[in-house]
Amino acid sequence: RTLNERLGAQVWLKAEGFQRGGAFKFRGAYNAISRLPEEALRTGVAAFSSGNHAQAVAISARLMGTTAVIVMPEDTPAAKLDATAGYDAEIVTYDRYSGDREAIARKLAAERGAELVPSYDHADIIAGQGTVGLELMRQCAEQGHTPDQVLIPCGGGGLSAGSAVAIRDISPATTVHPVEPEGFDDTRRSLAAGERLSNDASARSICDALQAGTPGAMTFPINRRLLGEGLVVSDEEVREAMRFAFRHLKLVIEPGGAVALAAVLAKKVPTRDKVTVVVLSGGNVDPEMFAAIQGA
Amino acid sequence: RTLNERLGAQVWLKAEGFQRGGAFKFRGAYNAISRLPEEALRTGVAAFSSGNHAQAVAISARLMGTTAVIVMPEDTPAAKLDATAGYDAEIVTYDRYSGDREAIARKLAAERGAELVPSYDHADIIAGQGTVGLELMRQCAEQGHTPDQVLIPCGGGGLSAGSAVAIRDISPATTVHPVEPEGFDDTRRSLAAGERLSNDASARSICDALQAGTPGAMTFPINRRLLGEGLVVSDEEVREAMRFAFRHLKLVIEPGGAVALAAVLAKKVPTRDKVTVVVLSGGNVDPEMFAAIQGA
Repeated sequence: RTLNERLGAQVWLKAEGFQRGGAFKFRGAYNAISRLPEEALRTGVAAFSSGNHAQAVAISARLMGTTAVIVMPEDTPAAKLDATAGYDAEIVTYDRYSGDREAIARKLAAERGAELVPSYDHADIIAGQGTVGLELMRQCAEQGHTPDQVLIPCGGGGLSAGSAVAIRDISPATTVHPVEPEGFDDTRRSLAAGERLSNDASARSICDALQAGTPGAMTFPINRRLLGEGLVVSDEEVREAMRFAFRHLKLVIEPGGAVALAAVLAKKVPTRDKVTVVVLSGGNVDPEMFAAIQGA
Repeated sequence: RTLNERLGAQVWLKAEGFQRGGAFKFRGAYNAISRLPEEALRTGVAAFSSGNHAQAVAISARLMGTTAVIVMPEDTPAAKLDATAGYDAEIVTYDRYSGDREAIARKLAAERGAELVPSYDHADIIAGQGTVGLELMRQCAEQGHTPDQVLIPCGGGGLSAGSAVAIRDISPATTVHPVEPEGFDDTRRSLAAGERLSNDASARSICDALQAGTPGAMTFPINRRLLGEGLVVSDEEVREAMRFAFRHLKLVIEPGGAVALAAVLAKKVPTRDKVTVVVLSGGNVDPEMFAAIQGA
């Protein structure tokens, strides 16, 4: 209500922090892992992830009765490392800015005969994440609305791609905006250029979940066909959105999960008299970081 | 899921932080104020409150097109003071431990001809708060469950009384436990003694919302007839519950709103193999206090 009054808008929030593992990632990981053939499940799965996909793979592997080894950046928030280990996954860390996580994960997977579960560039992952878009369209329909626009946090582009397929199949007139943190706006720039561009390796952001270096080879062609303009928010706009969520929504949102909310609060896109859906994609944030942001 | 696994129980949470004004109090205040005769609405309403009832009265008064003057303790969390003022209410502060808030509010109401809206001892307030119990029973029924027990944060006893009327009318076999912070367990002791007992004036707790001095004259006879044993939690058990809610539920709960969750986490009542509903009664907490609790 406060958000709508402040913006003169009708904004709906899709709260993925309530999903298993505290983020939307379980949708894709479980879809992919539950569809693996039985032989593959016998030798286990492997993944590389900044955290939320890691938890999702670990939970899904346990549910399917197989093992998981996960390659994670060594500066991953402790909440995500601990939660992943808590689901019995084996964790291998690497340096986010110098290591090649994909190469490390591929090597591990090859050594063990484990099936690599990518975090976005895979049809089953994209389809699973797309249930966010499918659900939010159904939930809006139940309320008698069709969104004019949907704002979606964007890292590798799997959530955007899958959701855009569902959303624009149901309502071709709805615009889907990916939202990225400053310095990690590879999808925005790639959409504008019509080709996959990378982020500068020196970029830094508090949005640990949205630091993919370049749009996915499989997600980008989908996103290029279906997404509207990409939006970008600063770390301070993200912090402000996290404070708004604490104060008015009573929700814990992690930095990467708050970028779409930050975009509407910072008026990066017109919302007046429109129906806007904002995806809050996850809530896994260390208490120390959250406390520092709220206490500021 | 984590809560259920940890306790071997089935626990459902009723999240009243999502209610207007961030706590269950809007239910009673709006019920009472919307039922006032037109003459009464012309001269405005008055209330005394530690915060959540204040916001609820302020919102309800604005919705009904009337004015509100609210007597609040001077140490009320800033989030609650600011929010109340933000709904255009006039605020008069007093010292929580030496002033008589009821006398101050009665004097103000008399001077202005304003209708005093009590925070619990009023049939319309109790009935409004009781919709929490009514709703949670309906929501459980939708899931195919009947709760064995419902744990409800208890200050003056309005939420407990109204909810117990609804819950035990629908399911006489369900036990309703009031939960109070240490030092403010007047309802627990009064239920055990069969008469209204007061708290020691020297008691202190972080649960600012649950510091009524004695059970209500109208709520206690209802509670005496309908409630099970009262439960008590320490401030540290409340902090632990707030940390659990942050980490696993992604919910912001205020100290007073977290006492029932604290009681199940601290195993103050058996939950194994039972269906337990926990009322999270509010989420209005200052960011500084929240940060201090999470960061610890």
